Amino acid sequence: MLGSPMRFREKLDAAVARNQSLLCVGLDPQPELMPLKSVASFNRAIIAATQDIVCAYKPNLAFYEALGREGIRALEKTLAYIPPHIPTIGDAKRGDVGHSARAYAQALFDGLGFDAVTVNPYLGHDSVEPFLAYQEKGVFLLCRTSNPGGADLQGLTVSLPGRGEMPLYQAVALRAQEWDRAGNVGLVVGATYPEELRQVRQLCPTLPILVPGIGAQGGDLELSLRHGLDTQGGGLILTSSRAIIYASRGRDFAPQARQAALALRQQVNSLRPAAAP
Amino acid sequence: MLGSPMRFREKLDAAVARNQSLLCVGLDPQPELMPLKSVASFNRAIIAATQDIVCAYKPNLAFYEALGREGIRALEKTLAYIPPHIPTIGDAKRGDVGHSARAYAQALFDGLGFDAVTVNPYLGHDSVEPFLAYQEKGVFLLCRTSNPGGADLQGLTVSLPGRGEMPLYQAVALRAQEWDRAGNVGLVVGATYPEELRQVRQLCPTLPILVPGIGAQGGDLELSLRHGLDTQGGGLILTSSRAIIYASRGRDFAPQARQAALALRQQVNSLRPAAAP
Repeated sequence: MLGSPMRFREKLDAAVARNQSLLCVGLDPQPELMPLKSVASFNRAIIAATQDIVCAYKPNLAFYEALGREGIRALEKTLAYIPPHIPTIGDAKRGDVGHSARAYAQALFDGLGFDAVTVNPYLGHDSVEPFLAYQEKGVFLLCRTSNPGGADLQGLTVSLPGRGEMPLYQAVALRAQEWDRAGNVGLVVGATYPEELRQVRQLCPTLPILVPGIGAQGGDLELSLRHGLDTQGGGLILTSSRAIIYASRGRDFAPQARQAALALRQQVNSLRPAAAP
Repeated sequence: MLGSPMRFREKLDAAVARNQSLLCVGLDPQPELMPLKSVASFNRAIIAATQDIVCAYKPNLAFYEALGREGIRALEKTLAYIPPHIPTIGDAKRGDVGHSARAYAQALFDGLGFDAVTVNPYLGHDSVEPFLAYQEKGVFLLCRTSNPGGADLQGLTVSLPGRGEMPLYQAVALRAQEWDRAGNVGLVVGATYPEELRQVRQLCPTLPILVPGIGAQGGDLELSLRHGLDTQGGGLILTSSRAIIYASRGRDFAPQARQAALALRQQVNSLRPAAAP
C-alpha cells in the first residue's frame, strides 16, 4: 500500500493548480434526470466537458448501487474515463468494525481504485484505521453534514475529556486531527453550515475540507470560502452535483454542464485571494 | 411500499417461534477461509445446513463488495437461496443525506430485497427517514457497536435537551425510539458491551436489538441474554458469523457449521426462560 507514485494531497494540489479550480463535480446519476440511457456515456460526456476546470470528481456510490450490478459496471467505466491526474473521491460514507472496514477499504481503494473516500466516524478510531492504513489515499471523515437533520446528533453538546464542552461535530474534528498520523485525513462540512465550517477550520487549520451542499442544496459559497479557506487560500474542495450535471436535461447537457462549472469556478476564484497564478 | 404480505417484526417473530431460535448467522465470505472457490456455493451449503435452526441471516455487504461485481452477483444468489420465511438483514451500515439515502434504501430494499438493514445514525433523522418509509422493512440503527473504538464517540457524555446527561449511544437509543412511528426500528448493540446493552434495554423496552460480537469477537452470551431480553423473553437477534461458518475450514464446513449453530442455539435457549414451547 506504500510507495504509490503520488499521495492524495499532492495529486489534489496539483489538480487545483493545473486547473485553477477548487471545484469538484459530483457524478450522481439519476436516470430520470438524464437525457441518455447509459450512465457511463452520460458521465463520459460530463467528464470530457469539465476535466480541464475541476480539481476532483466525486461519485456518490448510492446512485450506482441503486442501479444494481449494472450501476457498479457504470461506475467502473466512469472511473476509467477520468484522466489520471484528476483525483477521484468515492463518496461512500462507509463505517464498520475492523475486519469489515478492511473489506470496504479493499473494495474502494484496491477494487474501484478511488484516490480518496468519505468515511463515517461513528464507530471510532479502529473503524477508520483500515482506511488510514492506505497512506497514499485520502480519508474524509463526516464532521458536519449538509442536511438539516445533521444537527440531531452532530449538534449535541458533548464533554470531551481534557477539552471541555463542544458540539459533537467539533469533537469529531479534533479526533480526526489526532488520528491523522500519515497526513491523509480530511473532513466533510456542508456549505449549508458556514458558521460550523468556520469553527472546524479554526480547530483544524491544515486539514482539507470537502464541502458539499453548494448549488441544489443552497449552501453559501461566499461564506464557505471566507470561513473555510486555509492560510494558503486553499484546503477546500467545493462540491456541486445536480446544479452542474443537470444544468440542462436536454441533449446539450454536456456543454451546459461546462458553462455551469465555468461560472462556478469563476465565482469561486473571484472570492479566493490566492487564486491568481 | 405498503401492503407487503408481512412486516419485518412479524416475519422475525414467526421465524424465532418456528425454529425456536434467537440465532442469526452472519454470511460474511472471506475466500481465504473458505474451502470452496464459489461464494454462492459456500453460502448455499451453509444455508441448507442451518435454515431450520436460525431466526435470520445477516450478510455484511463489505465482504461482497470487496469481491467486486462478482461479489454482488454472489450476494444476489445467496439471497435467493434463503427460504422466504427466514428474514434477511442487510448489514450495510449506510448513512447519507436525503436523496442519497433514498437511493441506498432503493438499492437494499427494492434491488437486493432485504427484509431489514443496518443504518448509521450519525447524519440524523432525515437520513434515516427514507429507510423508515419502507414500513414493512426493519431498520436497525447502530447504537453501541461491538468494537473497542466504538466508545471513541458513542461513549462521550452528551447533554440531551430535556433529558440531561448521558453517553451518546443512549441518546441514539432515545432518538431511535422517537423516530419509530411505524414500529419498524431496531438497534445494534454489541455483545461485547453487556452493561451498555442493559442500559439500552431499560431505555427501549420493546425495540428489537441486533447483537453482534458473539463468538469470534468474544461477547458475553449469558450477560447479553440477561440484560437484553425483553419481558417476553425475546427481542434479541444474536449474531455469529465466523464461529459458525468457519467452524471448520475443510470440506466438512457445512455439517460443522450446523453443529456449531445447534450448540449455540441450545446454549441460548438454556439461558432463555421463555424458550420452551
